[in-house]
Amino acid sequence: MPKIITIAREYGSGGRLIAQKVAEKLQLVYYDNEIIDLAAKELGIDVDTIRRVSEEKTSSFMYTMSSSAFTLPLNDQVFAMQSKIIRHLATYDSCVIVNGCADYVLEDYDNVLTVFIHAPFESRLKRVEEEYKEEHDNAKKFVMKKDKNRTNYYNYYTTKKWGQLKNFDVTLNSDLGLDECANIIVDLYNKM
Amino acid sequence: MPKIITIAREYGSGGRLIAQKVAEKLQLVYYDNEIIDLAAKELGIDVDTIRRVSEEKTSSFMYTMSSSAFTLPLNDQVFAMQSKIIRHLATYDSCVIVNGCADYVLEDYDNVLTVFIHAPFESRLKRVEEEYKEEHDNAKKFVMKKDKNRTNYYNYYTTKKWGQLKNFDVTLNSDLGLDECANIIVDLYNKM
Repeated sequence: MPKIITIAREYGSGGRLIAQKVAEKLQLVYYDNEIIDLAAKELGIDVDTIRRVSEEKTSSFMYTMSSSAFTLPLNDQVFAMQSKIIRHLATYDSCVIVNGCADYVLEDYDNVLTVFIHAPFESRLKRVEEEYKEEHDNAKKFVMKKDKNRTNYYNYYTTKKWGQLKNFDVTLNSDLGLDECANIIVDLYNKM
Repeated sequence: MPKIITIAREYGSGGRLIAQKVAEKLQLVYYDNEIIDLAAKELGIDVDTIRRVSEEKTSSFMYTMSSSAFTLPLNDQVFAMQSKIIRHLATYDSCVIVNGCADYVLEDYDNVLTVFIHAPFESRLKRVEEEYKEEHDNAKKFVMKKDKNRTNYYNYYTTKKWGQLKNFDVTLNSDLGLDECANIIVDLYNKM
């Protein structure tokens, strides 16, 4: 029976790096934007468009835009398709899924270890400025906007609230160290 | 320099048992109701009275009751005294402190590992019924009341909200296993 690790993370927390370390140590398949790509292919929409909308909840504008072409608004279709694919992956093989809503999508599944990675705002800002090498006029506002988008997206599509510790088996402040966090997740996976 | 582990926990999560395991493995002093006893001694009030009020926030009734005898209501005095003692312990020697507000009381201290232990409601109810062997007319209501009291107490005395993952370096669902949780905390402490 497959064992699944879902990892949700705050933007700039290094959660994706931790997930990659975990997948490498455990020799597990790692899914991240791949899920979105798969969803995109099934929907027949180009990947860039679908990535852009994947962290925005449906707006009335999007609804108007898409209502002539689709039964559901584009974002709702993306969420439905991503959920379908996540559930498919989770029944197929053990894997690490980096996705903000995977804990919710798989909440009725057995053998799922749900993880949330966060960090103090200052640490995340520093990582975005130094490591991600992304150029923004205002990195602070960019991180805050990302937080807001992820919160809105989760709260819109699930019946839970974003970033509630009760949703997760383990939450970790990545200031503890990326390797330390990865090792904890690896140990818990091995004991599942 | 002392290294401190603070452990807050949901009632019935087994958080206290985990804390005891951690203290034993690390050979650290363990503070729990001892803190309250120390506070009681300094205040000169009997221990039972002070334990009873320690998880209730100040009510207008308490305020009236105590206003003739003390400058601050009894609960406020207890909180202030507990905070003072927790800060004293944290500068004195490495230790494990099981206290719902210790993460807040020590938030400006270095070398503090903040932990929150929780579990699904059903698991906590089961533990209360089976292991704690406490007799209640209605265990379910008793656990819910405990949750409400701890939430109210924390939200009243701190500037934060109870049970927010951002307040903690690590939060753990004790269904992962009490020993597994204790081992994670021990490893993190050793790497501090």
